[in-house]
Amino acid sequence: MDLNIKVNEKNHLDIGGADACDIAEEFGTPTYVIDENRIRDNYNRFYSAFSKYYPDFRVFYACKANTNLAVMKILESEGCSIDAVSPGEVYTARKVGFGSDRILFTGNNITNDELKFVHDEGVVLNIDSVSALKRLSEVVDPEGLKISLRVNPMVGAGHHDHCITGGVMSKFGIMDSEASEVYQMAKDLGFNPIGMHSHIGSGILDPEPFKLAIESTMDIAGKVHQDTGIDFEFVDFGGGIGIPYTPEEKIVDLDEFAKVNIELFKEKIDEYDMSSPAMFLEPGRYLVGDASTLLVTVNSVKQSYRKFIGVDAGFNTLLRPAMYDSYHHIVDASKMGDENTQKVDIAGNVCESGDLFARDRLMPDVEEGDILAILNAGAYGFTMSSNYNSRPLSSEVLVTDGECNLVREKQSFEDLFNNQIIPDHLK
Amino acid sequence: MDLNIKVNEKNHLDIGGADACDIAEEFGTPTYVIDENRIRDNYNRFYSAFSKYYPDFRVFYACKANTNLAVMKILESEGCSIDAVSPGEVYTARKVGFGSDRILFTGNNITNDELKFVHDEGVVLNIDSVSALKRLSEVVDPEGLKISLRVNPMVGAGHHDHCITGGVMSKFGIMDSEASEVYQMAKDLGFNPIGMHSHIGSGILDPEPFKLAIESTMDIAGKVHQDTGIDFEFVDFGGGIGIPYTPEEKIVDLDEFAKVNIELFKEKIDEYDMSSPAMFLEPGRYLVGDASTLLVTVNSVKQSYRKFIGVDAGFNTLLRPAMYDSYHHIVDASKMGDENTQKVDIAGNVCESGDLFARDRLMPDVEEGDILAILNAGAYGFTMSSNYNSRPLSSEVLVTDGECNLVREKQSFEDLFNNQIIPDHLK
Repeated sequence: MDLNIKVNEKNHLDIGGADACDIAEEFGTPTYVIDENRIRDNYNRFYSAFSKYYPDFRVFYACKANTNLAVMKILESEGCSIDAVSPGEVYTARKVGFGSDRILFTGNNITNDELKFVHDEGVVLNIDSVSALKRLSEVVDPEGLKISLRVNPMVGAGHHDHCITGGVMSKFGIMDSEASEVYQMAKDLGFNPIGMHSHIGSGILDPEPFKLAIESTMDIAGKVHQDTGIDFEFVDFGGGIGIPYTPEEKIVDLDEFAKVNIELFKEKIDEYDMSSPAMFLEPGRYLVGDASTLLVTVNSVKQSYRKFIGVDAGFNTLLRPAMYDSYHHIVDASKMGDENTQKVDIAGNVCESGDLFARDRLMPDVEEGDILAILNAGAYGFTMSSNYNSRPLSSEVLVTDGECNLVREKQSFEDLFNNQIIPDHLK
Repeated sequence: MDLNIKVNEKNHLDIGGADACDIAEEFGTPTYVIDENRIRDNYNRFYSAFSKYYPDFRVFYACKANTNLAVMKILESEGCSIDAVSPGEVYTARKVGFGSDRILFTGNNITNDELKFVHDEGVVLNIDSVSALKRLSEVVDPEGLKISLRVNPMVGAGHHDHCITGGVMSKFGIMDSEASEVYQMAKDLGFNPIGMHSHIGSGILDPEPFKLAIESTMDIAGKVHQDTGIDFEFVDFGGGIGIPYTPEEKIVDLDEFAKVNIELFKEKIDEYDMSSPAMFLEPGRYLVGDASTLLVTVNSVKQSYRKFIGVDAGFNTLLRPAMYDSYHHIVDASKMGDENTQKVDIAGNVCESGDLFARDRLMPDVEEGDILAILNAGAYGFTMSSNYNSRPLSSEVLVTDGECNLVREKQSFEDLFNNQIIPDHLK
């Protein structure tokens, strides 16, 4: 299978050269364990695959997947750029050292203050609506200001309905049919529109939906070019390339993915007689998804009407299974060699029936005290976690060549009261 | 309709005697606004309805619904008790002044350290599994220790699959068929079992499923009483009574609800010849659900293939619509008198297609700058919020007789880095 699983001589799970059980022992559970080298490898593999066919290519990490400062810093050091969706993400990227020329902002339903904040940071904005375009022209000086517009390419794909970002139901982007008009409006307002952005979804394992988006977006870009004379400096394609989550899913053939999509990109440049724009891609999950593992401890084995393996984390710690019904492969890090002997439900500690990490999952003879590893937890893992059930946010550990560093301390109970004020009359 | 909506002379939404638009102006948006008197009224209405028919009655607030310190303190001052599902909730309850005799703990998949922590706080535990019973007997001295057991009453109801907590699929409780055996085991281990707990779900508007749970649980309690001689000091029924979320839903007839359920409770006491145990109920949503409103500002009105009203909060701020497809009634607090003229989608600012507060919602002619009020956001609102998309957690405002107090400051961007440590080699 194509999942990224390594086992050491003790039959324990190996994470980046460290023993998962030792990490659990030293740092406690639940904890997210990040493999530094895996992120570096993922970035370089991705960058090389596309830049080989089209050198004027840049990777903008969709950092909503994982904004841990160490993760951001690792990608900064590799030369990656940042796709930010909120002022907080811009602030975070700047904090870890990304220059403003290495950040693109693609927000949705952004306030005037937020538009101004991002502009004042020197970051180019992908503008998502006529409303935002007009409002931006009112809160900053539009004269000559470089901007990009987000269009809705009318194709959609993704691992869950929530993650299909194109098509008629989508809240994102400017309609294809009004693109030329809105670009002209931008020019008339004084802006210098230099880019186009589109996004088709998340977790895509197949080049075909991506090709549709390239085609659809480039047709819009070509038409805008012809209608308005705009020569795009870049076209920025969102739509995250996926990773295998189940044992059956295959790793994306990145070379093939790059080859067919860049061929099409070039064909469209020729077809519409455009100067050669840079190609930007915005992977999130691909860069960090398989680089983190959530370690939890089994505290309870319970035979009820079904068999439940109870662990010390819940959907407050990892939301994807409860919210999107997402599959995360789970292994018993304490006994990697053991054969599967049973089907069990793996349940969290939140007081909701939906708090399950897996139903009917084949597992070996799991015992209380075992360390389970929930794989591929690097994207939309910690960033979606909450204090629900008054559970402190978990710790995070970075593994670098087998060495472990705590990169986030677990919250204390007192942290639950941060920013709260009890008014005098209730004291 | 039965929704709790008041309008002032300016045609603005009134919250506890304060103008919603003034609150938004003073404290910014998004902000949760809590109506102190509504919580007090809800508690007293609930307590009176049941205690009238059965004086040995106590209300345990299921505080996972809302652990804001001011909310907890208000209920503390009314004489309410606390249903806690995690050590953090026990810690929070103790912090605001609940004595340990006013807290019951009902955790699921609890670690040994957590069992010991709760015990050391002097709190009685509802034990959820044989595993937890045995482990508790190992980490504390069981001799004479008062405990209660949670049973699975094999009936389930709730507003969403995730919130049905009884039945064969449920991870919660001890099977009805093994109840006597496990109570006997508790006695044999030296414990003093004084209570039984069951829970059938959340958001129940109808007495019937509740009656089924009372019947089913009391049948288990009666049988355990007969089999083991245990005289229960209390029977503790979870299963939250709902509130109307839609204009069509009706307020629960609490008097009727209390009357039929307590009649049945008494019948069962007689049937099994039990000494009269106290009755505990554990409302969460009922006490706080309609006492908070999430105020947001419209920043974008966008005509795409559909019409979108964009606001300055997302599912990071209020998760229920995106996660459970929950309905929250939404009004334009700036123009309460205006007639509905259109169907719109009300979209948040998170970068996911599923980030919608409403689809096809009838609204008046909403304009940019208007304040929208998302009603009934007091239960499972702030407590489920997160920093997803690097959005700071929102503020909370308490309204008391028309006076407003900030009870939670909005997080800053720097708060996003709390507890993070960048290792030396990445600096």
